[in-house]
Amino acid sequence: MRRASIRAASIVESATSGMAAQARALKLKGVDVISLSQGEPDFPTPEFICDAAKKAIDSGKYFSYPPTGGYVDLKEAIALKYKIENGVGYNPSNIVVCNGAKQALSSTILSVLDPGDEAIILGPFWVSYYAQVTLAGGKPIVINGKFENGFKPPIDQLEEAINNKTRLIIFSSPSNPTGVVYPKKDLEQIANLVLRYPDVLVISDEIYEHINYTNARVSFASLPGMFERTITINGFGKCFAMTGWRVGYLAAPEWIASEVTKMQGHLSSSNSSIAQRAALAALTGDNTSVRNMVSEYRQRRDMVHNLFGSIPGVETVLPDGAFYFFPKVSRYYGSKAAGIEIRNSDDLCTYLLKEAHVALVPGSAFGDDECVRLSYAASRQELSPALTRIQEAIHKLEMVQYA
Amino acid sequence: MRRASIRAASIVESATSGMAAQARALKLKGVDVISLSQGEPDFPTPEFICDAAKKAIDSGKYFSYPPTGGYVDLKEAIALKYKIENGVGYNPSNIVVCNGAKQALSSTILSVLDPGDEAIILGPFWVSYYAQVTLAGGKPIVINGKFENGFKPPIDQLEEAINNKTRLIIFSSPSNPTGVVYPKKDLEQIANLVLRYPDVLVISDEIYEHINYTNARVSFASLPGMFERTITINGFGKCFAMTGWRVGYLAAPEWIASEVTKMQGHLSSSNSSIAQRAALAALTGDNTSVRNMVSEYRQRRDMVHNLFGSIPGVETVLPDGAFYFFPKVSRYYGSKAAGIEIRNSDDLCTYLLKEAHVALVPGSAFGDDECVRLSYAASRQELSPALTRIQEAIHKLEMVQYA
Repeated sequence: MRRASIRAASIVESATSGMAAQARALKLKGVDVISLSQGEPDFPTPEFICDAAKKAIDSGKYFSYPPTGGYVDLKEAIALKYKIENGVGYNPSNIVVCNGAKQALSSTILSVLDPGDEAIILGPFWVSYYAQVTLAGGKPIVINGKFENGFKPPIDQLEEAINNKTRLIIFSSPSNPTGVVYPKKDLEQIANLVLRYPDVLVISDEIYEHINYTNARVSFASLPGMFERTITINGFGKCFAMTGWRVGYLAAPEWIASEVTKMQGHLSSSNSSIAQRAALAALTGDNTSVRNMVSEYRQRRDMVHNLFGSIPGVETVLPDGAFYFFPKVSRYYGSKAAGIEIRNSDDLCTYLLKEAHVALVPGSAFGDDECVRLSYAASRQELSPALTRIQEAIHKLEMVQYA
Repeated sequence: MRRASIRAASIVESATSGMAAQARALKLKGVDVISLSQGEPDFPTPEFICDAAKKAIDSGKYFSYPPTGGYVDLKEAIALKYKIENGVGYNPSNIVVCNGAKQALSSTILSVLDPGDEAIILGPFWVSYYAQVTLAGGKPIVINGKFENGFKPPIDQLEEAINNKTRLIIFSSPSNPTGVVYPKKDLEQIANLVLRYPDVLVISDEIYEHINYTNARVSFASLPGMFERTITINGFGKCFAMTGWRVGYLAAPEWIASEVTKMQGHLSSSNSSIAQRAALAALTGDNTSVRNMVSEYRQRRDMVHNLFGSIPGVETVLPDGAFYFFPKVSRYYGSKAAGIEIRNSDDLCTYLLKEAHVALVPGSAFGDDECVRLSYAASRQELSPALTRIQEAIHKLEMVQYA
């Protein structure tokens, strides 16, 4: 019998889920694994958000289908947030609420990308961009920012790659996996290129917007001429510690919001009503808990950065946002220990899971095999021993390589 | 600038959302509209299910990402239900939990259908089947059961239509929009045809499973040889009055469950954690509330059937399940009233909304323009005046036609 469709066969399982599953399996065997592979807050959802969800259940008003693109009051609150915080004049008709930012991305890509279109992905990139472009029949063109350049967007290469077949440019800032925040001048340079190609749209993934330790916070859609060209992706999971609730959204020109809504009307309808009510509370409530979480992330970042400093041969770019480090580890390729030969980032992660019982994600999943991703959305009580274990395991490798 | 992708442009807005939106707009103007267009229970979600959701929130254990294909204990409960209630030996590895049955359908279709493949849809059919096949690049082949034959599946025509390009056969039983339950012997005939074509898979949409007034309840996957060929679609919205929560699922051979999980891992990840906990409670709790709702639906069905009997020229098939009537109204095509010329089911629905302030859905949306769909998932206090209003409006039409 014929098996998976060509489309399904064209993608591989998400590497983060893969590592998470391996870590879970080891944990089930009783191994004390420290998992730094998942990109999700270790904080509980703030209480006032939970209270709002319970109140919505008790009200009895949210048991039936929400509108496909989300409740109007939630869309109004999102539009207002963009006017106030980001200086972008979105209206509710520009907003579509989705089952996570992931669905906001995939529905957008399915709505604007035709088979054969090129989508330039500024890497190192989040794993699903590549798969989503592939699923839509598009051609992903990856352009990686270099470690040596702080993973900043490679404008020269972008200028070389952009052409009349380009339909999309996709990036995240603050970035998953690097934690880098793109400087405004770089975003402006991207915008200037986009202006020269009338069919090019930009997906600006701003899901880590609030986890930003700099004063620079620029929504790409706020740049001159970019409102009509930009699909802004955002959501509640990362900043409000509510990943499991699954509420993301996109903000875009009306024609795109309308196409995405129509498509979601056939693919999945709206996401969960109660989760949407929780999200509305998150957006309109007291944001002290968010500020406290961000402050804690920042302290962990500094702690992890110091700890990395004591591991010879592992280099880091100090991240300005999100909750990831993307250290360069390729110095150790060619070494071996514990019967494992380290040829690439996959091997190193396999080794670290086996030897140090620490789960990271290979950089290969993000398009950069020289690095690995470490999520510091974990307590300091976990981060500190995890880094010690990594150091010890790396030390063994060094011994072998230079023996 | 280029607009929607070919894929997005190939589909139209769901007709049920369209009518619901028109009805909402009239209501906002203060018009006393009775909306019988939406396919969703008018009952509140049973209290024990709500309690379970609130308890899940309070436990603090469900804030992070659920596994992409759903919590294991929920998948176990679903598999057990199929073993006990349906005689199908599904295991948790056969189950994928989705954002509603709609996503279970679309993810399946994207995972097994290649561009150019034919998908035979047994009509009158639920609106999104057609759109989902089109979105996947497949060719929908619609074969309608006839009103005169009680909308039973047209086996002879199916035999003529099936060929080596056929990849899928899609149907719902109990059916949306007709309410018809396919007899076991008809399902067996479909199975016999499928056995002759090794690449053909069957999507058996059993979302209305429990709203069935007959003793006949056959899961297609339980028929000889059909386990390996069937994707069973089901969910919690319709039977447990929890449409807004968005929890559906599919049960399928392991390779399909695995492909769908991988695809959803990139398209949307899991659906809402709290909603999944509510669904687990629904499945494992006391089902008295479900039986009470079904009993009430049955009484409404009988009431509506009687009321239809007093409208001359409108014929009905007594539905055995779901909560829809799909009456034949084409006798009135060619008539007019209130300045509206009635040429088809769209015109009749427009007329009934304007004249009677009752919202129905045109049969054209389900592939049969001779009929309209009426949902009796509304209180008897709404159904009775609605039918009277329809009768009066239809009466005016008759006067014009035969004047």
